[in-house]
Amino acid sequence: MSTELWYTERYEEHGAALSLKIREVLHREQSPYQSIEIFETEQFGTLMTLDGLVMVTDRDNFLYHEMMSHPALFTHPAPKRVLIIGGGDCGTLREVLRHREVEEVVQVELDERVTRVAERFFPELCENNNDPRAHFHFTDGIAWVTEAEAGRYDVIIVDSTDPVGPAAGLFATDFYAACHQALADQGVLVAQSESPLLHADLIRQCQQRMTEAGFDAVNSVYFPQFCYPSGWWSGTLGRKGLAMDAFRADEAKAFSGTHYYHAGMQQAAQVAPAFLLP
Amino acid sequence: MSTELWYTERYEEHGAALSLKIREVLHREQSPYQSIEIFETEQFGTLMTLDGLVMVTDRDNFLYHEMMSHPALFTHPAPKRVLIIGGGDCGTLREVLRHREVEEVVQVELDERVTRVAERFFPELCENNNDPRAHFHFTDGIAWVTEAEAGRYDVIIVDSTDPVGPAAGLFATDFYAACHQALADQGVLVAQSESPLLHADLIRQCQQRMTEAGFDAVNSVYFPQFCYPSGWWSGTLGRKGLAMDAFRADEAKAFSGTHYYHAGMQQAAQVAPAFLLP
Repeated sequence: MSTELWYTERYEEHGAALSLKIREVLHREQSPYQSIEIFETEQFGTLMTLDGLVMVTDRDNFLYHEMMSHPALFTHPAPKRVLIIGGGDCGTLREVLRHREVEEVVQVELDERVTRVAERFFPELCENNNDPRAHFHFTDGIAWVTEAEAGRYDVIIVDSTDPVGPAAGLFATDFYAACHQALADQGVLVAQSESPLLHADLIRQCQQRMTEAGFDAVNSVYFPQFCYPSGWWSGTLGRKGLAMDAFRADEAKAFSGTHYYHAGMQQAAQVAPAFLLP
Repeated sequence: MSTELWYTERYEEHGAALSLKIREVLHREQSPYQSIEIFETEQFGTLMTLDGLVMVTDRDNFLYHEMMSHPALFTHPAPKRVLIIGGGDCGTLREVLRHREVEEVVQVELDERVTRVAERFFPELCENNNDPRAHFHFTDGIAWVTEAEAGRYDVIIVDSTDPVGPAAGLFATDFYAACHQALADQGVLVAQSESPLLHADLIRQCQQRMTEAGFDAVNSVYFPQFCYPSGWWSGTLGRKGLAMDAFRADEAKAFSGTHYYHAGMQQAAQVAPAFLLP
């Protein structure tokens, strides 16, 4: 019997841990911001961790990336200019670029190394990085949004890490207010908002802060995501000058190629568990 | 620093594992059928394992138990006689007994020790075990259904372990056909059908076998369940003489006290991920 290698992420404050069986360590580096590691797993394809936390696996990243992009994009009546904050692995970017009406995607990721490593080890997620509509900036996302021209974007996607360290500011009312300002009328903001099971208070707080920041209709989308703590995740949506049920249903029905999202999922994913009903 | 104790369940064929931090081992026994263990976890309350596999934790069992009961019961126009196969921890039974129109619940669990241990360590799940409507039989569920009078039940809930060992027969077409026979007209069957992420083929097979067994409208409900493999789970519903959208919406809206399920979840939970659309 050969030696077994396991990667384990401990959810310390929740007294739980997830482990994935590893075939090989493919890459390890310390960027100016964090430790980036790439593993070949037994059953989940390639795995990227940042500071020891799972960011993406080949096998289940479709859940998160589809749900952080398509519900927001189909909420907007005609999204042309999209801003992604974070999103260094480019999986969200790939989904956004599948929308033909999108004319420009600006991705602002703090750590260029995450994107360069993803280009090497997650070629599928990065397959459209050369699309002329995609523009990369490796700098601070909060400053980018704060300094953006008013009404510059139709959709802003906050594809961030957990609300600690550099990402903490991405969960603040001030940041949501800056997003509101940077969005055009009929703009949509979506921000990853952690686990309903483990962080229900954070989801409520996200919703409340977006409301305080001026968004007219705020709720969340809920979806499974095995490799994130509890296997259940959320994104919180703020709509500027749009109703809660704004949805381009016909275009969503004609959209194909997704693995989880489809037109029927748009409303279903917005149904909160009883313990998170308003 | 004191010694740390962790319980780990390996999902061997999926190269993954879930661990829960343990405060104390509360109970261990070998029943005639399996090893039963009870742990006090750090963050998930009491944990029961059978043959080393997580069955239930205090913190997240509401997801599974609510979703294995309420969607089926609110699909039936007037459920009076309910049969639960398995369900030894009594969490599903408790949810069924919350329906006042239910007059009789027969629970057929193979291993009496599971129920006796649950009564001691999961008093909340067993709080209504003395309800005069509840009837316990500790015997083989397949034989029970096969020998049942035709049309004897309104709803059958298969709250089983994984499709290996004694539970394998609970996933067979013959068993579903026996359930169909044991159900009255307008009867509803729901069977736990594993993880959409890890066992999509099994879900398709379940749906196909229920259809072959004579059910008129078959689909699945999908829900999060942290402590089961992948954190994402399903139940598959077969309707006898009922349409796919049969639903007592008004009664579901008036139903309270649940933590995950509510009337809005009935349809939302039936929306399949794109990769499981028919």
